[in-house]
Amino acid sequence: MSDPFFHPISGQDLPRFAGVPSFMRLPHLTPDDARRADVEIGLIGIPWDAGTTNRPGPRHGPRQLRDYSTMMRRVNPASKIDPFALCNCADLGDVNPNPVDVQDTLTRITEFYADVAAQGIAPMTAGGDHLSSLPVLRALSSAYAQPLGMVHFDAHTDLYDTYFGGYRYTHGTPFRRAIEEGILDPKRVVQIGIRGPMYDGEDIEFGRSVGVRIITIEEFFDLGVKEVMRQTREVVGDGLTYCSFDIDFIDPAFAPGTGTPEVGGPNSFQAQQCVRMLEGLDLIGADMVEVSPPFDQSGGTAWLGVNIIFELMCVLSKAIDARR
Amino acid sequence: MSDPFFHPISGQDLPRFAGVPSFMRLPHLTPDDARRADVEIGLIGIPWDAGTTNRPGPRHGPRQLRDYSTMMRRVNPASKIDPFALCNCADLGDVNPNPVDVQDTLTRITEFYADVAAQGIAPMTAGGDHLSSLPVLRALSSAYAQPLGMVHFDAHTDLYDTYFGGYRYTHGTPFRRAIEEGILDPKRVVQIGIRGPMYDGEDIEFGRSVGVRIITIEEFFDLGVKEVMRQTREVVGDGLTYCSFDIDFIDPAFAPGTGTPEVGGPNSFQAQQCVRMLEGLDLIGADMVEVSPPFDQSGGTAWLGVNIIFELMCVLSKAIDARR
Amino acid sequence: MSDPFFHPISGQDLPRFAGVPSFMRLPHLTPDDARRADVEIGLIGIPWDAGTTNRPGPRHGPRQLRDYSTMMRRVNPASKIDPFALCNCADLGDVNPNPVDVQDTLTRITEFYADVAAQGIAPMTAGGDHLSSLPVLRALSSAYAQPLGMVHFDAHTDLYDTYFGGYRYTHGTPFRRAIEEGILDPKRVVQIGIRGPMYDGEDIEFGRSVGVRIITIEEFFDLGVKEVMRQTREVVGDGLTYCSFDIDFIDPAFAPGTGTPEVGGPNSFQAQQCVRMLEGLDLIGADMVEVSPPFDQSGGTAWLGVNIIFELMCVLSKAIDARR
Amino acid sequence: MSDPFFHPISGQDLPRFAGVPSFMRLPHLTPDDARRADVEIGLIGIPWDAGTTNRPGPRHGPRQLRDYSTMMRRVNPASKIDPFALCNCADLGDVNPNPVDVQDTLTRITEFYADVAAQGIAPMTAGGDHLSSLPVLRALSSAYAQPLGMVHFDAHTDLYDTYFGGYRYTHGTPFRRAIEEGILDPKRVVQIGIRGPMYDGEDIEFGRSVGVRIITIEEFFDLGVKEVMRQTREVVGDGLTYCSFDIDFIDPAFAPGTGTPEVGGPNSFQAQQCVRMLEGLDLIGADMVEVSPPFDQSGGTAWLGVNIIFELMCVLSKAIDARR
Amino acid sequence: MSDPFFHPISGQDLPRFAGVPSFMRLPHLTPDDARRADVEIGLIGIPWDAGTTNRPGPRHGPRQLRDYSTMMRRVNPASKIDPFALCNCADLGDVNPNPVDVQDTLTRITEFYADVAAQGIAPMTAGGDHLSSLPVLRALSSAYAQPLGMVHFDAHTDLYDTYFGGYRYTHGTPFRRAIEEGILDPKRVVQIGIRGPMYDGEDIEFGRSVGVRIITIEEFFDLGVKEVMRQTREVVGDGLTYCSFDIDFIDPAFAPGTGTPEVGGPNSFQAQQCVRMLEGLDLIGADMVEVSPPFDQSGGTAWLGVNIIFELMCVLSKAIDARR
Amino acid sequence: MSDPFFHPISGQDLPRFAGVPSFMRLPHLTPDDARRADVEIGLIGIPWDAGTTNRPGPRHGPRQLRDYSTMMRRVNPASKIDPFALCNCADLGDVNPNPVDVQDTLTRITEFYADVAAQGIAPMTAGGDHLSSLPVLRALSSAYAQPLGMVHFDAHTDLYDTYFGGYRYTHGTPFRRAIEEGILDPKRVVQIGIRGPMYDGEDIEFGRSVGVRIITIEEFFDLGVKEVMRQTREVVGDGLTYCSFDIDFIDPAFAPGTGTPEVGGPNSFQAQQCVRMLEGLDLIGADMVEVSPPFDQSGGTAWLGVNIIFELMCVLSKAIDARR
Repeated sequence: MSDPFFHPISGQDLPRFAGVPSFMRLPHLTPDDARRADVEIGLIGIPWDAGTTNRPGPRHGPRQLRDYSTMMRRVNPASKIDPFALCNCADLGDVNPNPVDVQDTLTRITEFYADVAAQGIAPMTAGGDHLSSLPVLRALSSAYAQPLGMVHFDAHTDLYDTYFGGYRYTHGTPFRRAIEEGILDPKRVVQIGIRGPMYDGEDIEFGRSVGVRIITIEEFFDLGVKEVMRQTREVVGDGLTYCSFDIDFIDPAFAPGTGTPEVGGPNSFQAQQCVRMLEGLDLIGADMVEVSPPFDQSGGTAWLGVNIIFELMCVLSKAIDARR
Repeated sequence: MSDPFFHPISGQDLPRFAGVPSFMRLPHLTPDDARRADVEIGLIGIPWDAGTTNRPGPRHGPRQLRDYSTMMRRVNPASKIDPFALCNCADLGDVNPNPVDVQDTLTRITEFYADVAAQGIAPMTAGGDHLSSLPVLRALSSAYAQPLGMVHFDAHTDLYDTYFGGYRYTHGTPFRRAIEEGILDPKRVVQIGIRGPMYDGEDIEFGRSVGVRIITIEEFFDLGVKEVMRQTREVVGDGLTYCSFDIDFIDPAFAPGTGTPEVGGPNSFQAQQCVRMLEGLDLIGADMVEVSPPFDQSGGTAWLGVNIIFELMCVLSKAIDARR
Repeated sequence: MSDPFFHPISGQDLPRFAGVPSFMRLPHLTPDDARRADVEIGLIGIPWDAGTTNRPGPRHGPRQLRDYSTMMRRVNPASKIDPFALCNCADLGDVNPNPVDVQDTLTRITEFYADVAAQGIAPMTAGGDHLSSLPVLRALSSAYAQPLGMVHFDAHTDLYDTYFGGYRYTHGTPFRRAIEEGILDPKRVVQIGIRGPMYDGEDIEFGRSVGVRIITIEEFFDLGVKEVMRQTREVVGDGLTYCSFDIDFIDPAFAPGTGTPEVGGPNSFQAQQCVRMLEGLDLIGADMVEVSPPFDQSGGTAWLGVNIIFELMCVLSKAIDARR
Repeated sequence: MSDPFFHPISGQDLPRFAGVPSFMRLPHLTPDDARRADVEIGLIGIPWDAGTTNRPGPRHGPRQLRDYSTMMRRVNPASKIDPFALCNCADLGDVNPNPVDVQDTLTRITEFYADVAAQGIAPMTAGGDHLSSLPVLRALSSAYAQPLGMVHFDAHTDLYDTYFGGYRYTHGTPFRRAIEEGILDPKRVVQIGIRGPMYDGEDIEFGRSVGVRIITIEEFFDLGVKEVMRQTREVVGDGLTYCSFDIDFIDPAFAPGTGTPEVGGPNSFQAQQCVRMLEGLDLIGADMVEVSPPFDQSGGTAWLGVNIIFELMCVLSKAIDARR
Repeated sequence: MSDPFFHPISGQDLPRFAGVPSFMRLPHLTPDDARRADVEIGLIGIPWDAGTTNRPGPRHGPRQLRDYSTMMRRVNPASKIDPFALCNCADLGDVNPNPVDVQDTLTRITEFYADVAAQGIAPMTAGGDHLSSLPVLRALSSAYAQPLGMVHFDAHTDLYDTYFGGYRYTHGTPFRRAIEEGILDPKRVVQIGIRGPMYDGEDIEFGRSVGVRIITIEEFFDLGVKEVMRQTREVVGDGLTYCSFDIDFIDPAFAPGTGTPEVGGPNSFQAQQCVRMLEGLDLIGADMVEVSPPFDQSGGTAWLGVNIIFELMCVLSKAIDARR
Repeated sequence: MSDPFFHPISGQDLPRFAGVPSFMRLPHLTPDDARRADVEIGLIGIPWDAGTTNRPGPRHGPRQLRDYSTMMRRVNPASKIDPFALCNCADLGDVNPNPVDVQDTLTRITEFYADVAAQGIAPMTAGGDHLSSLPVLRALSSAYAQPLGMVHFDAHTDLYDTYFGGYRYTHGTPFRRAIEEGILDPKRVVQIGIRGPMYDGEDIEFGRSVGVRIITIEEFFDLGVKEVMRQTREVVGDGLTYCSFDIDFIDPAFAPGTGTPEVGGPNSFQAQQCVRMLEGLDLIGADMVEVSPPFDQSGGTAWLGVNIIFELMCVLSKAIDARR
């Protein structure tokens, strides 16, 4: 069981709108805090969007996600998991990004996560645009010294090769790079929810050619959530697995605050169900990316993002518990 | 048939945006108006949110609901019920609340509704936060001299015991109080749509221990609307029944303007279907609560709330007609 | 295959937020442009809302739809149709409306579309309120010298007779007029998604009396999209067919930016499916109307509208290709 | 002194957000109400914007102005005038407009105001676009059987001749028409605050040629409010005078909710000062036009509009008192 | 000079949008933190608005003010004061309020501030509604064992006696209570910026009768900032002085996010000037109240509030420095 | 006199909301358009914000500025200048930026403007963040083979050296670089409106050490617009001069849509006056930067920006006319 030091503050004791907003009202531990050694799940912000090809804003994601996370409670109503009881959870703060240099920031992120991984902390990331996932995966694959499997919820494959005349590092290319670099095992990668008019389909061709399982939205609705997730668990199997959740997986009526929305997506209940069915996988980390506050100042998108983060923490805490 | 004095003004005669906005463009009768004796359904506002533990705003609900109700027409497209033809309906104005004293306002509301009940008027309330339902139930239970059954649409049970160190009257506690006070018969109470991360589940334990039928959202989607409502009608049976509808029952993509949204809820069509299937119950009143205009200045939440109020008026008018 | 002159600019070459926003980033051809002779599908704006009985705004629709259309890509992910490869497409600009005179503008629109039809261009219109469809139909029916069939997606029949004391030209009356004028063949008209409280149902009675197939939302959800569209194709048959798509067909959670929203509608995926199943009809034009930017400055409604326009262009381009 | 029946409800008794929103929380008298005979100042809405050449919305003005007027108190802090103590004031409801026919609505308004004038009520109008002022002036000039003087606060002269190829009735032309019709005496008309890039200046030339005193914004700031208003009082003199206040007179930072904003205008304090200095004129009516709620859902523009209406009521009540 | 531990993080090192948002990016010290003994200026949030008679929301003020305070830099451009160099500053977190009980919360606040005062920390408060100032003044007056002087910027006197039938504790009454309780010396109280239509003026009569200097907005603009502040300094003199700044002092075009806006106020530059001219007073604490995020989700009001807090910290740090 | 081909479309002929939105409704000429040879003032968008250290968004500036520019008319009401009559004006489209690489985009911009300058076109730029000005100045200084003078309206000096650990190219550093590169003559540079809390003042020290005339906001209000601009004209003298206008020069109540707002700035009338008093300078180009649509979806900031662009075109057209 977890140390009460790491328990969130209850909204029945301190109203939800009160207090400095750390993730989930957990203790905020700076890099040199001694208690960091006891952390099992670390919530980390990557306030960065320099890989964005379209509408910027996810650099403001961690701030708004922290704000809305103070409305969260602690027990999962469906699975009854209480992640805060299973694991020591803490807010590890934000990576310090360099907004004007992509390569410098990629390096900064990888270093931050290398430290986190070295301390045995499973990272639960709040992005940032989707390029953020690449340096996180670099650090984790390196720490575990193996390519990783991945469950990837998204409207887009993010498997494009280049943009704007040969530029290789954007939020549309992270997983092409990750596969090229050998840090993802494409045969253990599933992409769910892919939709939206295409440039030319080259990204999908590439993905399928290297073994990625791409489940389009038409297939998603035809198969139903349960079958989609059964196949997903089959593809990623027992190996170490990362989960990357782009908020634009969900229909923009539910999550308008994102830069590249695609209509015709799943609703929020289906999104919750999907994550709940990750239970049993050997998860080592997860991220929630592309929440863009300027495009939803109402905070509804962030509130949904926080709920998905909570679901991810539930299945992540079970995996950690299972590895003990 | 109803008296034409009580018919709403048509948008084909006076454009919807014109005129002083009373509920449904009905006559507005002050407490001492002689025509009040003829009213069968009274639309009443409770502009009050002092029981709110989180984000305030429902005090502005009645104003915005009146505004959007001017866009309503009169015949139900599914059931073909015209509540304005079946019953004399009127806007009875707002209860005068005291924003800075909870107990004083509870008393004021109960007194207002005691008068309404004494006149034989079935109240259709526009809240206000959910604590508003408690004094309404006190007045109705007293007028009918019996505990009441209730169909309760909500994301939350509102069966908590206390907040903030022992405080017993908040929008999270009204039905705990009502059951304790004997004004609700817990064995004839159904709660539909319950979801969202929990503090500790004590509210649900309490509810089930006293016989409340709690239908979680997972159960709701598994059973389907028709079966849920069949069971609901079975539980409340033939006795006098109240319906309390918290707008946060509906998914926040459809109803963002509320203080404690919970993702993963029903859509608006399912909400309409649920209310339509209350036809046949012996309804004596209903409320629509927790519409919070500051969190949806677009008015979409209020417009949905008005549509649900219309659906509630349809089944309420049928019940009144059946009692004649 | 199409002429590359008519291909849209890719977001991988020029970022989506850059450039003067023509529809779909297509060439903008003024009326006297020589290349107009080569156009097969013409995107045309009708910035006009003088027929609006309730909340105005669709006059701003074409502007916002052009803006968001720059986020579009080119290949349909479900049907794999690339309308820009199949047909020469261009932005033909806006009809010049007279905001203060209804009859004058009706004439101006009919004249504009008569020219378009005379050049053999299939018009894809961005409204404008729904009265816009009447003068377009007048021009097309005249050009083809026959009454047309129509697939009509909408929450409302727009078959009312008069408003405000006998006024016959509003956005609630265009198809009553079109049927009276003999430019629509009512036996080849299908209306899908009809819902919302009614004035008195006279519009539906009229429609059914002349043979219009009206599919209410209850029927829509009961039958399912596939069966609805099978019946639709059956009713309109092989004849020349127009498609009119009112954005309020879709639930207001997905499309809040419209003047007369009706809750309880289809979601965006269902809307996409519906249009995709028009493939095979002999389509000669289509419109997307009632997008009202002042009621959704976030642009989400326009973005959904653009996606539907894209779907309409896909089935329209197939029909053009089939007629070659 | 006024009859207490006509006193507004205090926010210290009934909270401002409670109750059906009539103008200033005054009694709402329908046309056939017997108490109408006692009214001295009648607040009237004209929910109409069919004369708008640019961005529509003022049809929603009266609704929002009523809403925000419930936040008003009763004593002028500068002049100490209490208009509700000086005169019997009431909300006379809205003129019923025809949104789809300009000429029909012009007639309806003139008839409504002819009745009001016949009852000896001074009208305080809430528009509506600026074309609304024309039929009001027609009724008043006719009732008083003489041309009227006018103090006109606006960024625009509204003295244009025609739009869109010869159309004579738009919100840019009302005072050109009024001067042509002999219902305004141009030598007793002052226009204050005129600014913004011009089409060609023909409107200003016309105005000056017939004797209108046009005070541009440059002149306004050079002279200062006191001197501007001294000259204004000098020009209109002792004769019967109307005051027309277009909210776009005030800088759009203070009043963004309007269709044709012009930057570089006066602030709200200067606007208040201007109206206060109308004290002493023989005012017979006033209007506040072009408040467009869709362009300021925050309500700030309406709140400022309500404050100016209050200032107008103060000087109007003094004029009525002086005529006794 | 201050301890570098208490220096804010620079936006040139960590981008402003990154990191957990404490006030001014200062260290956040919980009540039992040992470093609290070294603090000289403590920034404290009071997330509470249960005294609000009109539109609620200031309970969310501290959260949004912390968020926007991360955009602040450190040196005053006009006075060149660097408050962080002069004094040890820290974020002391929020008082834990009870949203549903006014008296309980008043006690909680007084106890919190009694501790702060006992530690010799000058409190810089972020409200909350204006009732928050009363318990703060109770604690400070008690700690200093004397009545205090006060400079009060506001559109309202907040000197009303009761509301809603005799209720004495609302955001309209704090200073009436404070004077009655002897914790403010009315002869050393100045109220600046008073404006807006009045209920009856009883508040102003009371204030003047006990010696409060009330400077209305008309007087403010007539005298000019320099003379107003010269008189202010003269009235409060050399004694211990508190400064209470209600954001509604500033015109709502600059600060729309507040519950009871009054048009016709000062601009933001004048507000900055006013606070700068408090330099030289013996200030012991200050507050910024009535920032209501739901009424300005853009954050502009909070950003202005943060700037005024910075100005208050500048003059407060000088006073602390002078007392050394 | 200008060629009518280059005249803007009038809002009295085509309503302002109609048509594809080019800048000022001017002809849109692509790079290879033959008519480009006749252009004297070219409106150019730079949709780019990769130099932004804080809140992104100006990449969307040109799109929104084009949209609102369709509300512009043509004659300056104060100076009576009609820039469209004096010069051939056209929309030259946008520079194609690379959102993910700063150096690549700097090069692309310089090349675009080198071509423009080579054609003898004076560029009127719509940014983009302030780093955009650097490559424009590089092109112009090179084309004219001399260092340029500059009138710079801004809240910030943009003379910082580096950010984020030595990074030299951000929107806070362009003019430091320009002075270092010898493309600005610092002794002929005036910066007006500087304000806001400072990091440490090093930027101002640098500026003054090399001879830049920095007029802080305090000085601005003390001297008044006329004296400020008299001194400005004196400093820049008769040499070639560029004008760079950052929208955050103006107070955020008037221009909230920008990334780094500073309270306490000039109002919009003062901004207009400032630009008008540039008449007589030998202007060769100008820019309007830092308009950030995501932070003001109402468009008010863009509308103000368009008005300032119009004022800049007026003085620029006079300078071009004088050089003939």
